[in-house]
Amino acid sequence: MIDLPSRGFERAEFKTRIARAQEALQMHELDGLLVMSEPEIQYFAGFQTQFWLSPTRSWFLFVPSEGNPTAIIPEIGADLMRDTWVSDIRTWPAPCPEDDGISLLTDLLLPFSQRNAAIGVMKGHETYLRMPLADWERLINGLPGMRVADATKQIQSIRMIKSPTEIEKVSAACEIGSAAFEQIPSLFKPAMSLEALFREFKRCALALGADNVPYLVGASDQGGYRNVISPPSRRPLHQGDVLMLDTGLTWDGYYCDFDRNWRLGHVSDQVHHVYEVLWDATEAGLEAIKPGKSAFDVFNAMSKVVSKASSEVSDIGRLGHGLGIQLTEQPSLASFDETELKENMVLTLEPAMSYGDGKIMVHEENIVVEANGARLLSKRAPQKLPNLL
Amino acid sequence: MIDLPSRGFERAEFKTRIARAQEALQMHELDGLLVMSEPEIQYFAGFQTQFWLSPTRSWFLFVPSEGNPTAIIPEIGADLMRDTWVSDIRTWPAPCPEDDGISLLTDLLLPFSQRNAAIGVMKGHETYLRMPLADWERLINGLPGMRVADATKQIQSIRMIKSPTEIEKVSAACEIGSAAFEQIPSLFKPAMSLEALFREFKRCALALGADNVPYLVGASDQGGYRNVISPPSRRPLHQGDVLMLDTGLTWDGYYCDFDRNWRLGHVSDQVHHVYEVLWDATEAGLEAIKPGKSAFDVFNAMSKVVSKASSEVSDIGRLGHGLGIQLTEQPSLASFDETELKENMVLTLEPAMSYGDGKIMVHEENIVVEANGARLLSKRAPQKLPNLL
Repeated sequence: MIDLPSRGFERAEFKTRIARAQEALQMHELDGLLVMSEPEIQYFAGFQTQFWLSPTRSWFLFVPSEGNPTAIIPEIGADLMRDTWVSDIRTWPAPCPEDDGISLLTDLLLPFSQRNAAIGVMKGHETYLRMPLADWERLINGLPGMRVADATKQIQSIRMIKSPTEIEKVSAACEIGSAAFEQIPSLFKPAMSLEALFREFKRCALALGADNVPYLVGASDQGGYRNVISPPSRRPLHQGDVLMLDTGLTWDGYYCDFDRNWRLGHVSDQVHHVYEVLWDATEAGLEAIKPGKSAFDVFNAMSKVVSKASSEVSDIGRLGHGLGIQLTEQPSLASFDETELKENMVLTLEPAMSYGDGKIMVHEENIVVEANGARLLSKRAPQKLPNLL
Repeated sequence: MIDLPSRGFERAEFKTRIARAQEALQMHELDGLLVMSEPEIQYFAGFQTQFWLSPTRSWFLFVPSEGNPTAIIPEIGADLMRDTWVSDIRTWPAPCPEDDGISLLTDLLLPFSQRNAAIGVMKGHETYLRMPLADWERLINGLPGMRVADATKQIQSIRMIKSPTEIEKVSAACEIGSAAFEQIPSLFKPAMSLEALFREFKRCALALGADNVPYLVGASDQGGYRNVISPPSRRPLHQGDVLMLDTGLTWDGYYCDFDRNWRLGHVSDQVHHVYEVLWDATEAGLEAIKPGKSAFDVFNAMSKVVSKASSEVSDIGRLGHGLGIQLTEQPSLASFDETELKENMVLTLEPAMSYGDGKIMVHEENIVVEANGARLLSKRAPQKLPNLL
């Protein structure tokens, strides 16, 4: 059985996160940070709920540059927020379209407006505004003296470096994912649909300890697949298919994100070759990972192996990314990302290769950056394309 | 076994949806509609993927006031988008933080800016901006002549009225949910944790045909629970507990959203009373539903039953809501919502009552509005609080 760590975090961990954010705020002369999206409120407050699925209500956490955070949240979340370390909790009976937290927020932020202070929000790459745009405009118009700066990079830099407890949680998710992928040969039945296999995989992952399986995409087609983000087809799996499953399952609020490929009986030499190139590219990525190297260096190491074997460049845009509270986080293993690798970053390596007539193959592993290099969190894929038949 | 309908939609359905949106655009003198969030892109294009979980990439669909829509999307989604009815698909190799679709969008919208046209976006209640705020600001600054109007109400009005095929899908999700709740007595084992029961419920729902179980919240505590959005506790279920599970599971992209309550052996007369009040309140809600009545009328009918029995008003904010592609949609069954009920709206009735020392109980059923009134999609909860022991 999978030996899972304990759940939750010590309160000290949240205080450390806040202290790091406050250090960044002070360094950039920001008087506070306003966050309103699930990952940041989970990260700073420890607030976890699936209720984020409902778009109806806005949620806010304000982190001043000194002192404790204030949660401004719908009344329905008050009881759950009281279980976190956040003690200043202000609520309103949401939904209230006329004023969904805006006057509470305005009261809190008015002193900043009055003294022309600047606060940070996350408005950059890989973020979105998790409140109605009209409410945001109303809020800002009501605080004419307040300056708003983009704090995306500062907060992402903090979140990129995982604590030992965070790494334990991603590792637990990866262990469950690895064990579930190992069950595929016993879940697979000839002529079953990909839809049925997806269902069995999810049930298996839950039985193995996953809290949820929010992400499972994949494809199966003759000699290879063309699409790596698709829901499952109802087409029966056929001899000659290449099958890929890619899962992001969660344990205690943290994701794994990796995939596995199989063949169903005989496939062409080209398919075997592509698989091996990607395995080698992953190996090159693993070897390139060292604190002090950059995200680009790892991209480059993998990209070289792929482009040596093929003139067809895949347009997936990057060859890996950060991982944690979100399925995809910073940095990007991409040509544009010079982020320096540091100990305790958790990354996916995801080399992809196009071949044939618009086909694509993707490999993915999850690792943590350690002093000596990459440590695998997912159980390494086999070196040769495994056969399910 | 559950007899499930066929998947997908006829192409004509998307054309009808677009035609309705275009009629609303023309009526409000808007030259187009820009949407960028999952439910709207699913609704208008038929594009379904779990890849939305990754926040890295922005997605755009532009619906002109006449003619066919244009998708501006990351290259990774091109193959899947080509399977939909949308034929004008423009892509970029995302992620590209320097220009994540903004120049493609600007090219498309420049003619509108040049002739001072107005386009609609959804920026009102129950929406959010699913792209980086900085990208939005850059887009708007680059189109100085273009006016932006809030089209939230127009689009929500269209989405509120479900087609027969949409109702079939919600109904299928509700049937699976009802069947899964009926399995609770066989899944339950004394002293199991709520976490274990959640896991068994999800596995059971998948086996019964659910595509996914994105939403399962609930609680169990002595004489009642206090929190209706919580992840499951590891505390063993005890004699004397009131247990509630609330699920939003999906079938072919559509949600159900309802809950069930149980007692574990003996509970106080007050608990029985609260349960019966809520059952009666739901009954009053069901009776109040008629085309031509308002969301407020249904709220009022339920609210009266609850407030006659208790002076403690629950702060959940509304007593039901719309349902479909999203777990929660418009309208709100609330004091502030005068939306007229129309045939083929799909709603949840969700009366709640506070009691004791901060306890709360919630009932929830799903219905479709028909000419003669409400038709239940969920299998009606028992009139008396069922016993699991």
